[in-house]
Amino acid sequence: MSSDIKDITAYMTDLGRRARAASRHLAAAPTGLKNTALQAIADDLQANRETLMQENRRDLEAGAAKGLDSALLDRLELTPARIDSMIEGIEQIIALPDPIGEIFDLNYRPSGIQVGRMRVPLGVVGIIYESRPNVTADAAALCLKSGNATVLRGGSEAFHSNQAIAASIQRGLQQAGLPGDAVQVIATTDRAAVGAMITMPEAIDVIIPRGGKGLIERISNDARVPVIKHLDGICHVYIDDQADPAKAFDIAVNAKTQRYGTCNTMETLLVAEAIAEQILPTLAAAYAEHGVELRGCARCREILPDCRQATDSDWDTEYLGPILSIRVVEGLDQAIDHISSHSSGHTESIVTENYSRARRFLTEVDSSSVMVNASTRFADGFEYGLGAEIGISTDKFHARGPVGLEGLTSVKYIVLGDGHIRT
Amino acid sequence: MSSDIKDITAYMTDLGRRARAASRHLAAAPTGLKNTALQAIADDLQANRETLMQENRRDLEAGAAKGLDSALLDRLELTPARIDSMIEGIEQIIALPDPIGEIFDLNYRPSGIQVGRMRVPLGVVGIIYESRPNVTADAAALCLKSGNATVLRGGSEAFHSNQAIAASIQRGLQQAGLPGDAVQVIATTDRAAVGAMITMPEAIDVIIPRGGKGLIERISNDARVPVIKHLDGICHVYIDDQADPAKAFDIAVNAKTQRYGTCNTMETLLVAEAIAEQILPTLAAAYAEHGVELRGCARCREILPDCRQATDSDWDTEYLGPILSIRVVEGLDQAIDHISSHSSGHTESIVTENYSRARRFLTEVDSSSVMVNASTRFADGFEYGLGAEIGISTDKFHARGPVGLEGLTSVKYIVLGDGHIRT
Repeated sequence: MSSDIKDITAYMTDLGRRARAASRHLAAAPTGLKNTALQAIADDLQANRETLMQENRRDLEAGAAKGLDSALLDRLELTPARIDSMIEGIEQIIALPDPIGEIFDLNYRPSGIQVGRMRVPLGVVGIIYESRPNVTADAAALCLKSGNATVLRGGSEAFHSNQAIAASIQRGLQQAGLPGDAVQVIATTDRAAVGAMITMPEAIDVIIPRGGKGLIERISNDARVPVIKHLDGICHVYIDDQADPAKAFDIAVNAKTQRYGTCNTMETLLVAEAIAEQILPTLAAAYAEHGVELRGCARCREILPDCRQATDSDWDTEYLGPILSIRVVEGLDQAIDHISSHSSGHTESIVTENYSRARRFLTEVDSSSVMVNASTRFADGFEYGLGAEIGISTDKFHARGPVGLEGLTSVKYIVLGDGHIRT
Repeated sequence: MSSDIKDITAYMTDLGRRARAASRHLAAAPTGLKNTALQAIADDLQANRETLMQENRRDLEAGAAKGLDSALLDRLELTPARIDSMIEGIEQIIALPDPIGEIFDLNYRPSGIQVGRMRVPLGVVGIIYESRPNVTADAAALCLKSGNATVLRGGSEAFHSNQAIAASIQRGLQQAGLPGDAVQVIATTDRAAVGAMITMPEAIDVIIPRGGKGLIERISNDARVPVIKHLDGICHVYIDDQADPAKAFDIAVNAKTQRYGTCNTMETLLVAEAIAEQILPTLAAAYAEHGVELRGCARCREILPDCRQATDSDWDTEYLGPILSIRVVEGLDQAIDHISSHSSGHTESIVTENYSRARRFLTEVDSSSVMVNASTRFADGFEYGLGAEIGISTDKFHARGPVGLEGLTSVKYIVLGDGHIRT
């Protein structure tokens, strides 16, 4: 398929032009119509499960032949359960309130005009992702619900799976009477398509890369379009000396061990000096049971002699695995200093019963999620009630933290008058 | 002064590092302290009016000697009335509510955690502006109130004026006990400082250029930092055939003639065919009184034979002067099509008594301000109740339309638990 397209620039220019035209239709599409299209897409995926799995098998066989590792092949696979959850995901998005057209802050001004704001789509959203084909359906559904046209570029190893999902999306859009160009999946694995996609501000309003840090950094560096990006997740839990020890134990164990490979997993535990001797041995035993390797500061190793010495680079490492660095700090000030020097700005949590320290931590820690007495693992669109997330942003501009429907929108001012003029 | 700095890169790196450090203090500064500093700055400007005017005179004399044109010299001048309004501007910002720390949408989730959002500063804001020295005080005050550190780069022709205002700001900050690095005015006119400023994402979180389109385009093209920008203001008024003729007359005259050089001034008038013969002759007479030159489409010239023929480029021109292009359209659909092809996305207004057409215009026109029965001249931070604006954004990302304190903020998620863990 990819070889069919000779002139990538012309192909992408045309695709961008069509996305822009479709975005105008979508922006004005009523909620009911968008939901009808989403339901038609879900039904079509359901009706074509067999084809989906056949096309996925082509990708899996090609991947195995190319020698892809088992983790990658696992991410690539569309099992019946994964198809179920892809369809459920769309149905959950149908159930979410439509953010578009919401009018808020509508107030009279002394001049007599009434000024408010209306939520509107961003326009055209470009998604660049790696091996998981379910992103094709998730991302298309979120963008469609929020009135945006979408240009999707999945990983080359998932090409046939993505095209099969795209075909269901096309049929669903047509059935509802929405333009097929509302969701376009790039029909080539040529890398030049990505280069074109991220440098077309006239056609694409925002790029959301989903994948490893390398992909995201490359895209951010070269993009001429705003990028909603998520880099590292170096998350901290600080156990204050006024923590409830039982809560501290539960949270510190959960934040590290509930899942290792996720960006909201704790990578560094900070423990106040005054409670360290009480809490660290019990915690270390629990981590040992889970097979978590500990790397501690000098003071930590006085309490836990079997713990390996942490190096400077440990404080800046996202392990994404069963390793935890531990630092004993004097108290809240030093904990905040450590976080402000080493955190990636993703998620941090304090465990304390002290009201003023909880308030200070919430105010002074500058991360996309800041928690009191809760596990960092909660930093997630579903847990926050966004319904679904298109990504997590570690930026401060436009969208921050888990990005759901609202992150795919903008606002405009509306002014209602009765012939008012400015004097 | 500018020749004192030999190594611009080292100077800017140090300035950026100090801004970043100061931003941490400012982010946690209580409202009262920020207001105290703002009042101290206003008082210091008041106490040093004479020095301000002396320093401004140096700039004016140098400008005259360099042959700057009278419009530029006028913008540069600090008259007693302009100093008054600079001081009043700061006092108005003191009176605005502090956006920082506001917590909203705090709700319990089924898991038992309470999730909300807290408004926080962006961090460090860089402002690049041209000849008006009052921007130094306005921008610094808005950034300070919103908890941001500021790096200001004014035009070289206002160098001494800006440094004098900067000195007042420094004394005010010190008097309140806030770090002087919270507001830094670049002490060189070397252009390399701008190049450094827009490529320091580690030190500066957002750049706001204020000035002509050329300046803004140059900065946007080269920036490695998000830019809140405002390009053209090609604003439209559409007079529907169900308009109240009196309102249509008032609005069409006001939107063009109240001021010519502003970005929210109407540049193109669209008139529905069915009302054109009734309304255009009266309007043309009013424009003639104001000395506004008209350029019309063929149908317009049938009604107004003295009107000059509009060329294709007229529909895409921001005149910023007493010229107006007029097009007779079939009705609402053609008006929206014209706007979507030619508008710069700033401000558009419909004049109509028809409920459904007003609703369609509000929904389908994709501009930062969309109005019904009101003059485009209302598109302004003061008129909208933002108190003051740091600029107007024609982008859809992050901030759109007049940008006040809220546009200088971000949000973070906060999670309150009682030992909650994820299962």
